[in-house]
Amino acid sequence: MKRLTRRDNMAELQGFFYPRTAHGGSSIIPDPPWSYSGDLLTVEFRTNPERVAELLPAPLEPAPDDPGAVALIWADWQSCSTGRAELLDPVRAQYKEAFVVVRCAFAGRVYSRCVYIWVDKDFAIARGLHQGYPKKLGSMWQTRPHPFHHAAPQIAAGGVFGATLAAGDRRLAEAVVSLREESDTNGFVNSHPMAHHRVYPGIGKGAPDAFAELISSGAASVEAGPAWRGDADLRLFDSPTEELSRLEVDEVIGGYYRQVGVTWDGGTSLALGSADGWQHTTGHREGQA
Amino acid sequence: MKRLTRRDNMAELQGFFYPRTAHGGSSIIPDPPWSYSGDLLTVEFRTNPERVAELLPAPLEPAPDDPGAVALIWADWQSCSTGRAELLDPVRAQYKEAFVVVRCAFAGRVYSRCVYIWVDKDFAIARGLHQGYPKKLGSMWQTRPHPFHHAAPQIAAGGVFGATLAAGDRRLAEAVVSLREESDTNGFVNSHPMAHHRVYPGIGKGAPDAFAELISSGAASVEAGPAWRGDADLRLFDSPTEELSRLEVDEVIGGYYRQVGVTWDGGTSLALGSADGWQHTTGHREGQA
Amino acid sequence: MKRLTRRDNMAELQGFFYPRTAHGGSSIIPDPPWSYSGDLLTVEFRTNPERVAELLPAPLEPAPDDPGAVALIWADWQSCSTGRAELLDPVRAQYKEAFVVVRCAFAGRVYSRCVYIWVDKDFAIARGLHQGYPKKLGSMWQTRPHPFHHAAPQIAAGGVFGATLAAGDRRLAEAVVSLREESDTNGFVNSHPMAHHRVYPGIGKGAPDAFAELISSGAASVEAGPAWRGDADLRLFDSPTEELSRLEVDEVIGGYYRQVGVTWDGGTSLALGSADGWQHTTGHREGQA
Amino acid sequence: MKRLTRRDNMAELQGFFYPRTAHGGSSIIPDPPWSYSGDLLTVEFRTNPERVAELLPAPLEPAPDDPGAVALIWADWQSCSTGRAELLDPVRAQYKEAFVVVRCAFAGRVYSRCVYIWVDKDFAIARGLHQGYPKKLGSMWQTRPHPFHHAAPQIAAGGVFGATLAAGDRRLAEAVVSLREESDTNGFVNSHPMAHHRVYPGIGKGAPDAFAELISSGAASVEAGPAWRGDADLRLFDSPTEELSRLEVDEVIGGYYRQVGVTWDGGTSLALGSADGWQHTTGHREGQA
Repeated sequence: MKRLTRRDNMAELQGFFYPRTAHGGSSIIPDPPWSYSGDLLTVEFRTNPERVAELLPAPLEPAPDDPGAVALIWADWQSCSTGRAELLDPVRAQYKEAFVVVRCAFAGRVYSRCVYIWVDKDFAIARGLHQGYPKKLGSMWQTRPHPFHHAAPQIAAGGVFGATLAAGDRRLAEAVVSLREESDTNGFVNSHPMAHHRVYPGIGKGAPDAFAELISSGAASVEAGPAWRGDADLRLFDSPTEELSRLEVDEVIGGYYRQVGVTWDGGTSLALGSADGWQHTTGHREGQA
Repeated sequence: MKRLTRRDNMAELQGFFYPRTAHGGSSIIPDPPWSYSGDLLTVEFRTNPERVAELLPAPLEPAPDDPGAVALIWADWQSCSTGRAELLDPVRAQYKEAFVVVRCAFAGRVYSRCVYIWVDKDFAIARGLHQGYPKKLGSMWQTRPHPFHHAAPQIAAGGVFGATLAAGDRRLAEAVVSLREESDTNGFVNSHPMAHHRVYPGIGKGAPDAFAELISSGAASVEAGPAWRGDADLRLFDSPTEELSRLEVDEVIGGYYRQVGVTWDGGTSLALGSADGWQHTTGHREGQA
Repeated sequence: MKRLTRRDNMAELQGFFYPRTAHGGSSIIPDPPWSYSGDLLTVEFRTNPERVAELLPAPLEPAPDDPGAVALIWADWQSCSTGRAELLDPVRAQYKEAFVVVRCAFAGRVYSRCVYIWVDKDFAIARGLHQGYPKKLGSMWQTRPHPFHHAAPQIAAGGVFGATLAAGDRRLAEAVVSLREESDTNGFVNSHPMAHHRVYPGIGKGAPDAFAELISSGAASVEAGPAWRGDADLRLFDSPTEELSRLEVDEVIGGYYRQVGVTWDGGTSLALGSADGWQHTTGHREGQA
Repeated sequence: MKRLTRRDNMAELQGFFYPRTAHGGSSIIPDPPWSYSGDLLTVEFRTNPERVAELLPAPLEPAPDDPGAVALIWADWQSCSTGRAELLDPVRAQYKEAFVVVRCAFAGRVYSRCVYIWVDKDFAIARGLHQGYPKKLGSMWQTRPHPFHHAAPQIAAGGVFGATLAAGDRRLAEAVVSLREESDTNGFVNSHPMAHHRVYPGIGKGAPDAFAELISSGAASVEAGPAWRGDADLRLFDSPTEELSRLEVDEVIGGYYRQVGVTWDGGTSLALGSADGWQHTTGHREGQA
């Protein structure tokens, strides 16, 4: 095969993702680090562990412990990159998401994994693609706390929060969380580094995947307010284009609320997939996150 | 003219606005009182008083004092009615708006008046129609405060907030407010009861208005956090379907931020218009709000 | 009551609806005539006549004939006013709607009446308010015909068209129409002038309506392509904020498809409501549309 | 490095792109072939060839001929996959896009290349990612033709079509095309197979790209109506997050309109990038598309 060298007079294009240009001013997302301030509303529940296992592709295995545990998390975010320019043009900073997390294992470690996720902005889709979150567009809403009670709960005992998720003009999920007491944790399912796949299908008709990588990803830093927990009610609905309702709610574990500030600044490549199977990424030792 | 009596077997239809039905479960908005929790970002400025006067229909006159003062206010709301059901289905509760307020006078009193307003939900349009706000749909965004600084300002000295407004795929306004110190007021332009018109154009071709009413409207109760003030920058842009940019910013007065809880529970009819002019509404005495 | 005269130096404000300004360039809708080019997909069915009657306010009565007949119509429109400026800025011209029509009677004549309607643009809401259509915002989609079959049906025998309606993130209706043959009509339910109410609730707490008018409204001119009819399937879904599903589909009459060009240029005031009941509008004789 | 074999009892996950599941019912896009019926509005113009060259990453070079030629194309699509299920749930089938195409060269052949593209649905983003189109979300509108003239042009001499594009609440482009005569072609810039990159940035902080592939892509089949051409007017606007306006319109070549039916069923891998440069993909011979 012939090797092609880059022409010296061809501009090196700039931009973190796409489209890349000479001046780098068009990329759908800028370079990390990416920073977030937001509110998380979580419902944890147990489903049939087989329904979780059927969502875990090679080389992942089910979590050894409580393999049927699932978290459905709504998040209301404001986000920015270095320079914080997005904050003053908030159409570029604010977005909402609803995502489903399970646990799994790889190379002797437990990871969290997002199996379904919906967002309402394109920069959120793009950051997700980079981080291996399988992002689709949807319509999600969650009650906001506010110091004034007229039309808002507070993050306190008795505060009641609702959340909904829809996609393709069909409602997919509804939840109500009634806060009862402060909590040591904001749930446990989404508490590990993520183990996500990044894949390009082969471009040729019927071709195998052109690229498959297993990555781990997690926040570089997190600051959080007190976590609150309470009772939760969760309803999942069918859709011809979704399978969320296969994760039937057999047992609600609990509901949680927490405000957080987060910075994300890169992850780690764990393994690369090929026709021969999966190989640990060079430089990654078994047992390393 | 023949008088038509209501048939006894015709159901009395229920519902505050439209559509009215036997069971009243379809109305675009429910009965007041309506409650709101939200954040207000305000820029006050002065324009040519003639540009304000040209927006005041009969029977209003310019404010005797500082007639060129204008407020452009962005608001990020969660709202509900009696029973607070909307809070747990927040697609029905949350909306944003951006509106332009001036002052005027009627029957010896000074009123505020909203001359332009854009919102992003239909229930907000409907409440506005009832209250005489000339609501159109738009896309408006304002920086949110958050306890965690990663991607958010705080409502404190040094907190910087941006806001934008667009409609018809054209940006109409951008503002940046940099908070400096606590303030006695949240501005002065929007501090009076509103004097608004409610109008139906005649249905016949070329017909005069079928209905014209001047109403006053204001909050039944307001709770507010400390107001903050600071420097403000405001840019208005042209559009073939808007005239906002005629209110040229000759002098910025200041920027303000405040969190509020509000209840609205009705207003007052001031005058009714007809081919013969305007007449005080029966029961309303001159000088009464 | 004191009479207020308009001050001679107060500008006469311009604009068909709101907001009115000195130059008239801000009105949410311009003066009629309004023109439309579009595609109509109709499903006609019969429901319990009581479920129709419960939607008819005074002074209307049920249609003497086939009182349980209902049409659910999806429309995909491009529209404009005099000068056709909207056509070159099509965000201002294109909109979709889904609406429910029944029949009723007033003063010895049969009328059509839109009992529920959802649209996806603000100018469509405003034209609807003027014409007495009870417009709310929703998300509606209908299959488009296209000369090339790759991803489209044609308006011909065998052409299959689907349509959906959602509001508040809940699906409200789905239909499938399979065209079979040309038809003399495009259905019968929406074939009469409309009898609609235009109402302002009283502004005072607990006050009676400030304005109530019964109007008739219909196209000034219509050009239409051949109507096609065929089998139809229609499903209505429950929602806590809608009552569409009370119009249970007892018997599908048929489905229709037609392309039309329409101009609307005013309607007629039939009656005005007051605490004393309804009175024919001055100049309107019984029996006149 | 340790090789990891897939566990035999690990389900093989189904789904063309993401998320992949046991039953394959969640993928954001289904398997090709993908079919499209739609209308294309094109404006071709010339800009400074350096402004095109600065958008061509290795291993591409400028087109040898007319290197400054650009096409800005608006498309109004209905699309589906095998089984055509999307057509009856048209929220999943209909989308609009606006995209910018230039020409380039690789291995002795001329290709077209999409340098910027905005769409309004998530399935359109996902198909674009697979095909190497750098898709972002935007708001785009184009005048629709319709048999009835009331509010529509026809695809004929004298037909006038407008189109707009906005993203991030800023208008980016506006065009008006006035059709004059039938045309042999629908423009020339977008007439070659596409040469696109598919890239994953490295997941580690500061890491080089994890994957970079040059692919070619084109329709498997196209049926088209007569192409029409005429005069065109095009305006590009600045935005802090876009560089479209760098492609200054020095000379308008012309405007075009055409209705098409298209099927896409895979492309070809041309070259793979690595730290060592670009290598032709195994099996691809120089000169092959």
